Amino acid sequence: MTPQEQQEPQAPQETPSPKRRRGRPTGARAGDSGTRERILAAARAVFSERGYDRTSIRAIARAAEVDPALVHHYFGAKEQIFEAAIEVSFAPALSVPELLAAGPEGVGERLARYFLSVWQNPVTRAPLLAVVRSAVTNETAATVLRGFVLRRLLLRVVGELDLPDARLRAELAAAQMMGVVLMRYVLKVEPLASATEEEVVAYVAPTIQRYLTAAE
Amino acid sequence: MTPQEQQEPQAPQETPSPKRRRGRPTGARAGDSGTRERILAAARAVFSERGYDRTSIRAIARAAEVDPALVHHYFGAKEQIFEAAIEVSFAPALSVPELLAAGPEGVGERLARYFLSVWQNPVTRAPLLAVVRSAVTNETAATVLRGFVLRRLLLRVVGELDLPDARLRAELAAAQMMGVVLMRYVLKVEPLASATEEEVVAYVAPTIQRYLTAAE
Repeated sequence: MTPQEQQEPQAPQETPSPKRRRGRPTGARAGDSGTRERILAAARAVFSERGYDRTSIRAIARAAEVDPALVHHYFGAKEQIFEAAIEVSFAPALSVPELLAAGPEGVGERLARYFLSVWQNPVTRAPLLAVVRSAVTNETAATVLRGFVLRRLLLRVVGELDLPDARLRAELAAAQMMGVVLMRYVLKVEPLASATEEEVVAYVAPTIQRYLTAAE
Repeated sequence: MTPQEQQEPQAPQETPSPKRRRGRPTGARAGDSGTRERILAAARAVFSERGYDRTSIRAIARAAEVDPALVHHYFGAKEQIFEAAIEVSFAPALSVPELLAAGPEGVGERLARYFLSVWQNPVTRAPLLAVVRSAVTNETAATVLRGFVLRRLLLRVVGELDLPDARLRAELAAAQMMGVVLMRYVLKVEPLASATEEEVVAYVAPTIQRYLTAAE
């Protein structure tokens, strides 16, 4: 997110007149405090439904019932809207550094349990899944996701690990969780898909623990 | 693959006449021994380029320069063509039971090294990646992949493991490798993307070894 996006920006122009909106239902007025949020919610819905490739600024604007210029004003290009959408969808992941900060003992179990709980809940799972799908199928979306995960998560995680190869280790732990999530919630491979969270945690926690704490 | 697909089938009709082919270049004659292979190669190329969702029998036929009826004759519906494509793309995975059969000692290392070598090579990576992308974004493709992996791989792997939860363990090992592959070759997260195969093997092998051999 650029600093410009973090503040509440001023609209670049007055509210588009009904004539310029070509008969669409009256949307948010530029400058409405909720407009940015509404565009963001629409963007997440459209990205989620169509994936990154087939999402256009125009489609997001239509879903949010605003002028496309307003979408561009608040977020910039499609890449930046996607980044803002990731920011919201990945909000649960930003608790990971706290879980690490609680100390090395049991960190594998804490992280494995936390990850599964986030993915088990359809409300948090759907937007995460949409981001992963976009990133797996589109190079630009992958780049945006990579940058986000690096800046917002990985560097903070690495700050908590006092080990050689800290970043590689964090990524391997993430890879284990990503793989489990993919096979359990996306490909729905049995018996992994129907195993209880505790069964999965029992197997996966020692893996995470080893990557993040074992000095070997 | 149904038994019907495994034998060389008879064409349902004579070679379509040039008139019926609407001026397309003369394609394979029905009954050509290479026709099935040619359709399959075209199918893999089209699935790979467009993903499962946006691939049609018609597009495959066009790429193979045959009549769509011939595609249907050899393979049936889109699902079955996708399954046949997986069969080819996943051929390297079918060596996994052999690697297991060589005994428990060092199995984690053998498997991790083998997986990475298959994904490291662009020739074997591209078609695998295409299948994974399709399965991650399309429910039907996921079902076909799941069935294939279960029948052709998982059941054979489990036959080699003499442990409780053998299938769950095999899936968790696969999840670790899938996650690594995704982060290394698709999302290209650093330093995992640029680490040597040996560095990755050193970290991942004990994980695979534990899932497949540790009675805990």
